[in-house]
Amino acid sequence: MSLDVRAFLRAKREGQTHGGSDIGEFIAAYTRGDVPDYQVSAWLMAAFVRGLSEAETQALTEALLDSGRRFDWSALGRPSADKHSTGGIGDKISLPLAPVVAACGVLVPMVSGRGLGHTGGTLDKLESIPGFRIHLEPAAMQAQLDRLGVVMVGQGPDLAPADGLLYALRDVTSTVESPSFIVPSIVSKKIAEGAGSVVYDVKCGSGAFMRTPDAARSLAQRLVATTRGLGAKSAALVTEMSFPIGRMVGNALEVRESCDVLRGAGPADTRELTVELAAVMLRSAGAARDDAEGRLRAARALDDGTAWERFLALVEAQGGDAAALEHPERLHRAPVQLDVCAERTAWLSACDGFALGEVSVAIGGGRRAKADAIDPRVGLEMLVERGARVEAGSPFLRLHLAREDGASIARVRDCFRWADAPPPTVPRVIERVD
Amino acid sequence: MSLDVRAFLRAKREGQTHGGSDIGEFIAAYTRGDVPDYQVSAWLMAAFVRGLSEAETQALTEALLDSGRRFDWSALGRPSADKHSTGGIGDKISLPLAPVVAACGVLVPMVSGRGLGHTGGTLDKLESIPGFRIHLEPAAMQAQLDRLGVVMVGQGPDLAPADGLLYALRDVTSTVESPSFIVPSIVSKKIAEGAGSVVYDVKCGSGAFMRTPDAARSLAQRLVATTRGLGAKSAALVTEMSFPIGRMVGNALEVRESCDVLRGAGPADTRELTVELAAVMLRSAGAARDDAEGRLRAARALDDGTAWERFLALVEAQGGDAAALEHPERLHRAPVQLDVCAERTAWLSACDGFALGEVSVAIGGGRRAKADAIDPRVGLEMLVERGARVEAGSPFLRLHLAREDGASIARVRDCFRWADAPPPTVPRVIERVD
Repeated sequence: MSLDVRAFLRAKREGQTHGGSDIGEFIAAYTRGDVPDYQVSAWLMAAFVRGLSEAETQALTEALLDSGRRFDWSALGRPSADKHSTGGIGDKISLPLAPVVAACGVLVPMVSGRGLGHTGGTLDKLESIPGFRIHLEPAAMQAQLDRLGVVMVGQGPDLAPADGLLYALRDVTSTVESPSFIVPSIVSKKIAEGAGSVVYDVKCGSGAFMRTPDAARSLAQRLVATTRGLGAKSAALVTEMSFPIGRMVGNALEVRESCDVLRGAGPADTRELTVELAAVMLRSAGAARDDAEGRLRAARALDDGTAWERFLALVEAQGGDAAALEHPERLHRAPVQLDVCAERTAWLSACDGFALGEVSVAIGGGRRAKADAIDPRVGLEMLVERGARVEAGSPFLRLHLAREDGASIARVRDCFRWADAPPPTVPRVIERVD
Repeated sequence: MSLDVRAFLRAKREGQTHGGSDIGEFIAAYTRGDVPDYQVSAWLMAAFVRGLSEAETQALTEALLDSGRRFDWSALGRPSADKHSTGGIGDKISLPLAPVVAACGVLVPMVSGRGLGHTGGTLDKLESIPGFRIHLEPAAMQAQLDRLGVVMVGQGPDLAPADGLLYALRDVTSTVESPSFIVPSIVSKKIAEGAGSVVYDVKCGSGAFMRTPDAARSLAQRLVATTRGLGAKSAALVTEMSFPIGRMVGNALEVRESCDVLRGAGPADTRELTVELAAVMLRSAGAARDDAEGRLRAARALDDGTAWERFLALVEAQGGDAAALEHPERLHRAPVQLDVCAERTAWLSACDGFALGEVSVAIGGGRRAKADAIDPRVGLEMLVERGARVEAGSPFLRLHLAREDGASIARVRDCFRWADAPPPTVPRVIERVD
């Protein structure tokens, strides 16, 4: 190794910008085991505090990408696109979105993650469909992409393995939350999965990692710039994430709601986000002239049944019980339902999304540590929308629980704020980053 | 362990101040092996970049101190004092200073280090005296202190062992040069050796770690404050360190020059620094009313032979060949002498002390790595003082070498600057910190 690691650490310690191939050499040497954890963790902390420039962020992304395999679907001769969300409460959008985009002729080689902390994960939701397999061999992925235009799988160990190593070290050295590391971690995996266009849904609000529009916009811009720097097309939406998306929070509950959307129904905000993200993906991939055409095509795929048929075919292809999706009574159902009622007559005005996500974890719907088991049946069901007027004593939220648990009622109640007049409307899409 | 290490790292990452016993718990857990290197190195980098407050610096010092034994000489019923220098070129002051102060009735339990990098170390100088033993058992230390008032030894493995652990990690993670770590490392060892008063000689200039008076003053103030915070008396001098101290640089050469000073002769600057530091130690330890009285007593000890007798007794007590000190021809002598001559007639105006120290290392007088061997015979001898007028072709510096090495002549020449008029005088003592 030609890199002088101590000089490399000193440079970032002093806030200097790493030159040329230094970050690539450093990460490659770490992945080979030639640089010990204690030097890497010192660099992580220095880079966390001092930050990485755009060029450095891209170099780190390339280094993570180069540590593993990189899929290439160009043999299929069609444009491809994927979406990544930074994580929210009730964010089931990937489930209706992937089949919608595939139904519009764009390949969706979607590689997703599990939920961790207060946000859910697409893989957990898919696994609440009995039989659904989240691991496919590359050849099977390519065959299914060719036939159905969509796969929804988990990340294999050969996709950006340096990211897994680095994440484990970031986790124990309190260097997780920096955009300088978040961007390379996300982008390297998206580029590795071979999508020609990557659209980001950067969540913003009390239920998101980014609490302010400024922080979310900045992250969105860095994601888009880094993705483009690696040769893929990219765009992003910054979207509101304080109230849950749709009415359902919980793995099986969210699958049911996703099916509603795919059949042309479902909550308006969930359909709207699906259509908006699909439009950006279609336009970005070159399958729609502009967002307006993309919206029309996505809405049509939801309304004419083609997206729903595509989803059923996907579930069946990956071993899932597609028939159960048409008969929701065959899906997981929690044994206990408890309603949370309004204490006074008022308008439902605000939600602490983080606290609500924590309730969802507490009742068994999420994980605190990677090895935790989750209960696909449990969750929260909004009975009214944000801004609704609720009579004193009327239910506004239903808890789906594994067992009687009155304490959760008080915890849920603490997550909401009430007003004496209708609150102003808050759109889901806050900003577009192109 | 009750400390949440990740929260501890996060706090310093964000520039917060650690509370109460957190640093103590962290270092104790690290010393026990309960916190891995990669978490400690992340903290070192965060603390390097964000800095430690005065209270945190003191907490780290206490934590290092608490990791090992702490000597206590109070049974001897006399005041005690020691001096620490931050390191320079030709800085042999400890050798005359310790016997002078002991001769004036103050115990000097001096624990010194070896040279590393461009600066020399007292232990290396002492070991160039044939037979000199730098390790004494605690009981032997106490007996010798009682009888002679002075010991000059190396640091045993039981003195602040956490500092050794931490230094090894700082060395490989580029977190060495921060005052937040330098101060605890120095002060913990000085307090552990049991001196009731610690005087610091903070070097400043091209041959010092601190290049500017501001940096040196700030370090001096932190050393003094931290030492006082741990219950010892303290003061500091900031002293000029660009030209070598005295005329000799090199281990045996510096012993010879120290003997000259101890016999009331030697270069004026070396005697002056010895007297000034002795005065501060005597005053600080309560053995002189003020610096003026301290100076008088120190000068008298140099002039009336008591300091010299004390040094001979010390050398003899620690196994050294005291007779050789009275017959310098019996000391180590390098086989080759080469003179470096002035290229034009001019006044010797400036010296790059760091570069000159590097020449001294290159010819075998110092170490690049801890395990390197040194040659006690080699060194540099200034033939004229700073500010002297030298005729073209006349020698101004003599190299004492293990072998013919003409290349060193050019390297030495590059270390000096010449002027066409006498340069202004530069006093050794720049500032006093009390």
